Amino acid sequence: MLKDENFADWYADIVEKANLSDKRYPIKGMNVWTPYGWKIMRQVDTYIRRELDNTGHDEVCFPLLIPETEFKKEKDHIKGFDSEVYWVTHAGLNELDVRLVVRPTSETAMYPMFALWIRSHQDLPLKVYQIVNTFRYETKQTRSFIRVREIHFFESHTCHATEEEAQEQVEEDIRVLANIMSKLCLPYSLLRRTEWDKFPGAHYTVGIDTAMPNGRALQIGSIHHYRTNFSVPYGITYEDGDGEHRHVHQTTYGMSERLLGAMIGVHGDDKGLVIPPAVAPFQAVVIPILSKKNAEEVSEAARGIADALSKAGIRVKLDDRDDRPGSKYYDWEIRGVPLRLELGARDIENGVVTFARRDNGEKGTIALDSLTEGTRLVLRDIAFSMYEKAWEAQRASVQDIGSLDAIPEKTLRFGWCGCEECGHAIEDRFELKLLGTPYPAEEYQGSCIVCGKPASTVAYAARSM
Amino acid sequence: MLKDENFADWYADIVEKANLSDKRYPIKGMNVWTPYGWKIMRQVDTYIRRELDNTGHDEVCFPLLIPETEFKKEKDHIKGFDSEVYWVTHAGLNELDVRLVVRPTSETAMYPMFALWIRSHQDLPLKVYQIVNTFRYETKQTRSFIRVREIHFFESHTCHATEEEAQEQVEEDIRVLANIMSKLCLPYSLLRRTEWDKFPGAHYTVGIDTAMPNGRALQIGSIHHYRTNFSVPYGITYEDGDGEHRHVHQTTYGMSERLLGAMIGVHGDDKGLVIPPAVAPFQAVVIPILSKKNAEEVSEAARGIADALSKAGIRVKLDDRDDRPGSKYYDWEIRGVPLRLELGARDIENGVVTFARRDNGEKGTIALDSLTEGTRLVLRDIAFSMYEKAWEAQRASVQDIGSLDAIPEKTLRFGWCGCEECGHAIEDRFELKLLGTPYPAEEYQGSCIVCGKPASTVAYAARSM
Repeated sequence: MLKDENFADWYADIVEKANLSDKRYPIKGMNVWTPYGWKIMRQVDTYIRRELDNTGHDEVCFPLLIPETEFKKEKDHIKGFDSEVYWVTHAGLNELDVRLVVRPTSETAMYPMFALWIRSHQDLPLKVYQIVNTFRYETKQTRSFIRVREIHFFESHTCHATEEEAQEQVEEDIRVLANIMSKLCLPYSLLRRTEWDKFPGAHYTVGIDTAMPNGRALQIGSIHHYRTNFSVPYGITYEDGDGEHRHVHQTTYGMSERLLGAMIGVHGDDKGLVIPPAVAPFQAVVIPILSKKNAEEVSEAARGIADALSKAGIRVKLDDRDDRPGSKYYDWEIRGVPLRLELGARDIENGVVTFARRDNGEKGTIALDSLTEGTRLVLRDIAFSMYEKAWEAQRASVQDIGSLDAIPEKTLRFGWCGCEECGHAIEDRFELKLLGTPYPAEEYQGSCIVCGKPASTVAYAARSM
Repeated sequence: MLKDENFADWYADIVEKANLSDKRYPIKGMNVWTPYGWKIMRQVDTYIRRELDNTGHDEVCFPLLIPETEFKKEKDHIKGFDSEVYWVTHAGLNELDVRLVVRPTSETAMYPMFALWIRSHQDLPLKVYQIVNTFRYETKQTRSFIRVREIHFFESHTCHATEEEAQEQVEEDIRVLANIMSKLCLPYSLLRRTEWDKFPGAHYTVGIDTAMPNGRALQIGSIHHYRTNFSVPYGITYEDGDGEHRHVHQTTYGMSERLLGAMIGVHGDDKGLVIPPAVAPFQAVVIPILSKKNAEEVSEAARGIADALSKAGIRVKLDDRDDRPGSKYYDWEIRGVPLRLELGARDIENGVVTFARRDNGEKGTIALDSLTEGTRLVLRDIAFSMYEKAWEAQRASVQDIGSLDAIPEKTLRFGWCGCEECGHAIEDRFELKLLGTPYPAEEYQGSCIVCGKPASTVAYAARSM
């Protein structure tokens, strides 16, 4: 299966071969996280926790089920969701008086509690997050990690005294995002979604998109500024310094297991996965190259290398199975282990270990007397190269067009007057989705590709995954 | 609220005051994990993961929802659960063809997949676990962490070639249990449940109970040996060395957030929580004792102590709020921080920091030039004392009785012939529950407290929480 020829089949094939997830579970789109895939996702979660903890967010865990009465308090929100939620209607042998929604996102679970928790300006800002699974009754074709019905994600929710402070939170979220994405070696764009495409109930939405190799855009997360759109219906108020009761200004930020989907798509190649060192369950695999006469010596030395790396905090796997080296190479290439260390009798004589990089196939040696430093250095260079290469591809994925006659091949960029009519005209002409305008806004002087009137911004459009 | 006078009210009060959980969520028994409670639970999860990883279990994550058709394959199992599960019947605007159960435990989610995963004896043993929330439509009065409708828990599931290997897994589970419980400073008993009280579908069930200070038994987990009771209906077979297809032998082991409930009940006192050092979000709190003339010097030294402990890997909180020390003591006592470090000008002069232990109130000093070693030593002694004290209480909670005329005050122990009729007679007479017989079995020569016939075992009975 070749990535460049048929991306969709290549993707499905690699998920199966690397054993990241099992989609044979008897509910379509609800997949089993098998050990290897779950290990990667949990490494991603580790960085998410670290970043959110470091920026003063508290981790919480809210109930999965939400009473319909709470769920329906914000009108736009429920309108956006009621065709895609799961309903619990019975418990035991009884029909419930109030139906329960299975969490599609947690605004309506959290905000009734925020109204109890927040009393005065001293309770602000309130910054919490949770890492849970969420549920959407997806009717389109499902795809592992990208379009599923049970979705692993994090969601942070914040409350602030003023709109400006909420705006500062959005800026902080963007810094958190940058830190997480650099660990995953993933590029992204920030686009303010159109008014008709923003999150139901939001004042505005910033979409976080990564360009996939097939030319499509994958939304991997979003940041929302709610102003007081939720705090009014949910009655979340605080008493300010003058004794006045005011509604809080809110934001949310969330990213899902699509992060894993993006890593597979962006970094993988025809040999299999390529996992960024920061989140690889095994950062290095040690493979002894045995010959008859020195099998014992080499085995022991290989074990010594694995032990030394492990003690230094590097996640390492010793593959001492009774199998040909070539067959082992093949296995670990599929699974995307960033660095392979091969150790034979000659390596020992020379005081080195031979390495092969998964990202670009380069080979070299690391001196055994600086093993951990050398290994760390190569891993760091792998991460750096992967990040650079991915950003280059992201930048190259944009096609500037000047008229509706253009032949679309990639993500399109063009002048837009900002009106909904012209927006839909572009979507209809090219059969793709208007992703929005740059966030933060960038200066632009040109004309709308549809109506020809002066345009103060560019917009982006692409097929979405 | 005094623990000895009214345990139930004391417990509810302490959960609220220490801000472990918020039960005001608009669904009864589905509580919000607030930051402090969730931090403790996540520390507990860390030890669970470590123990299960170290014994060769792979972490997975299975879907929450289970089709009714899969759920009903094992007849005893469904009979045991169908009055206490939540049902998803609708998705979006559609009624589902097959209703979905919200996971009450994951046998019926996992076992159809195990049937696909296991082909030959080389795939065995299969050992997986997950840490997720589970759902029971509880109709009795709810109580935070002890009887709730959304329950945080872990469940491990294993498959083996033979009944003996499954039996060895039970023994391994018991070693894992011992390691976890020593971190939580919790005592327990292992009792083989009666035939009429075992887990629906199990060959046998070992209940793990901790005696609570009010004389009741709290079941905090269980280990089940399934033999082939599930592998037959779910078709989980392997090909043995001779090409024969055989059914696997299975076990499960699970413990829930009741572990936190047990820690609150067993260790807490009239001043609040007492958290074991291994799982305390803050193991030590540093409180500067300021006077006017040396406030700056003491503040700085206190910060230095907190930094040094933090660098050494001790979870420490510097409480430099502008408030009276006494008020700070009170706050951290409620929250159960194991060790309080007070630093005043005189301490600095003497080259020490003054400590107060939360578990027994003892005070002393730690030399500043061996700060981290000294702190570690005191924390270790706190853990050891808590564990000893808790085991003493557990042992003292048993009351041996020789006849049905006894006045029951604690957990009862008595000879039992093993028959169901006598078992129920005891339960009816004392209005308590037969917890079972010692696991592993202990030799006993006596007579049944009901029928007087020779009894080959003792049994235990208690009120359950």
